[in-house]
Amino acid sequence: MADSSDVRFLKGHGTKNDFVIIPDRDATLELSARQVARICDRRSGIGADGVLRVVPTDAVADATQSSSARWFMDYRNADGSIAEMCGNGARVFAHFLVDEGWEDGPEFTIATRAGRHDVVIGSDGEISVGMGAPADGVAGRDPIVSLGGRSYQADAWWLPNPHAVVFVEDLEAFDTPLPEPEVVDHRRFPTGQNVEFVHDVSIPGQLHAEMRVHERGVGETLSCGTGACAVSLSVRKRHGVEAPGTSAIDVPGGRLRVHHTADGRINLIGPAELVGRGTFDPDWWENAE
Amino acid sequence: MADSSDVRFLKGHGTKNDFVIIPDRDATLELSARQVARICDRRSGIGADGVLRVVPTDAVADATQSSSARWFMDYRNADGSIAEMCGNGARVFAHFLVDEGWEDGPEFTIATRAGRHDVVIGSDGEISVGMGAPADGVAGRDPIVSLGGRSYQADAWWLPNPHAVVFVEDLEAFDTPLPEPEVVDHRRFPTGQNVEFVHDVSIPGQLHAEMRVHERGVGETLSCGTGACAVSLSVRKRHGVEAPGTSAIDVPGGRLRVHHTADGRINLIGPAELVGRGTFDPDWWENAE
Repeated sequence: MADSSDVRFLKGHGTKNDFVIIPDRDATLELSARQVARICDRRSGIGADGVLRVVPTDAVADATQSSSARWFMDYRNADGSIAEMCGNGARVFAHFLVDEGWEDGPEFTIATRAGRHDVVIGSDGEISVGMGAPADGVAGRDPIVSLGGRSYQADAWWLPNPHAVVFVEDLEAFDTPLPEPEVVDHRRFPTGQNVEFVHDVSIPGQLHAEMRVHERGVGETLSCGTGACAVSLSVRKRHGVEAPGTSAIDVPGGRLRVHHTADGRINLIGPAELVGRGTFDPDWWENAE
Repeated sequence: MADSSDVRFLKGHGTKNDFVIIPDRDATLELSARQVARICDRRSGIGADGVLRVVPTDAVADATQSSSARWFMDYRNADGSIAEMCGNGARVFAHFLVDEGWEDGPEFTIATRAGRHDVVIGSDGEISVGMGAPADGVAGRDPIVSLGGRSYQADAWWLPNPHAVVFVEDLEAFDTPLPEPEVVDHRRFPTGQNVEFVHDVSIPGQLHAEMRVHERGVGETLSCGTGACAVSLSVRKRHGVEAPGTSAIDVPGGRLRVHHTADGRINLIGPAELVGRGTFDPDWWENAE
C-alpha cells in the first residue's frame, strides 16, 4: 500500500462522462468498492461517473491475454462495482497516458477486462478507440419501446451490452431527465437494456443524428459511447449504407463520431479533457479506506 | 494574473455541502462568473455547490469594514453569481485556513460580504461560526406551507435570508427530492423562501430535530446552515426555551449543532472535511477563462 499522502488523482471527462483517474504505476493500490463509491460521491468525495485506475498490464492477472498492451484500464462504476469497458472512459484513459508520457502515441493499445482496444490520437486531439464489432443478438421480433403514451419499433444491438434504438421526430417532447421507457420483448433483452431516442438529421453525404439515452439502472446520462455506436448502426441501416464511413452522433454532452470499417468493426471517436490533478488529503483517504 | 499552471484548488465539504476552494494569497485571480460555473460543473469541471476564493482582506475593497479579519471569503454560487455568506462554506473556509497554516486557531475572525464572523475550532475538530442574530421580519400572519395535499402553519425567520419552518410527523412521507412547496402569505416572503420540514425528536434536556430543506431556486439540498439555525429557533420556541443552549439538528448530510447565546446570537457548529488538493490543468483553465 502506498503511503496515503502519495495517492494521486486526476479529474477528466469525455463528452461530459466524467472520471477520477488514479495512476498506480507500481500496482500497489487495492481499491475497495467502498473507496470507489466514496471517491465518486459528488458531495463528500471528488465526484465522477467512475474511477479509472491505471496499472501495468503485467501486474493484472485477468489481463494476461492483453499483455501486448502496456497499461490496463481498471474501470469501476460509481457504486464501486466492476465494469468491463467504457468507451468514453477509454478516451480519457488514453489522453492521460499520452499527457503523462506513459505512452508516446499517436497509436497504441490499451487493455481492459473486455480485451485489447486500439487507440489513435488524432492531430486535432480527438481520440479514436476500437470498440470491436457488434455481437449477434438473440433471434426474435424487434422490441417495442413505449414512452410518453407512444410506442416505437426499436432496433436491437449488442455492443456487447444491449441497446434498443428508436427514431423520433422531436427529442424535446420527452421529460428531462428521460423517464424509464417500457420495453416489450424480453426474449431479446433478458437483462434489461439501454434505450436511445434518435432524431435523424442526416444530409446527403453525411450521416448525422442527435440522441438522448436512458442507461440501464442509471437513468438519462449526458453521453453513452456504446449507445452512440448503436445509433450509428441504426442510422446506417435506415439509409442503406454498408460502405465504410463515419457518422456524426450528437449526445447531450457533445459530439461523437463513429467510424465503421470495411470488415464491420467500429471505432468511437471523440474528445477527452483533463480538468485538474492532485492528491487526496491523507485524513480523508484514511477514512475512505 | 498568475501563470495558469499555478492555479491551485482544493475540494472540501461540510455536511455534504461541497466547495472548490481557490487559494489566492496574492490576490491576483479575477474569477469570472463563467469560470466559476465551469469549475462547479459536476461533469465537465471539478463539481461543487460553490467556490470559496481565499484572499487577503486588505486586497478586497468591499471588505474594508472587516479589516480586523486577515482573510476574506469570496463566495460564489455554482452558477457564478455572488453570494454574501454561507454557513457551511465558512466552516470549510476556516478549516482550510488552519490546515494551510494561514491561521493558527483555535479562535479567529473571517471576513465575508455579510461582515465579520467569529470562528472557533473545537478540540473535536468541529467548527463554530458566528451567524449573528435573526433579523426582524415583516409583520403579518404566519405563512401557510402546502405540500402533498396538506397545509401547515409555518414559523417565519430571517437569518437574514428568509425561512419558513413547519413541523411534520414523518419526513419520509414526501417525495425525494422534495417538490417545491406552495407558500401562502407573500407579504412576509416577497422574494421567496427556503422551506424546512422538521421532525422534532427532542428528549428532556436535549433539543433535537431532523430536517429536510427545499432551498429557494435550487430544490432539496443535503444541508443548509441558515436553515438549521431557523429550525433550532422554531424548536426552542415550541419547547418554550429561552435560556442559552445548544440544539442538535440532523440534516440529510450529517449533524449540525446550533448554539444560542444569552444575547440572542447564533453559532452554527459542525464538521468540515478536505477531500483533495491539486492544480487545474493549464489547457482546461485557459478554456475556462
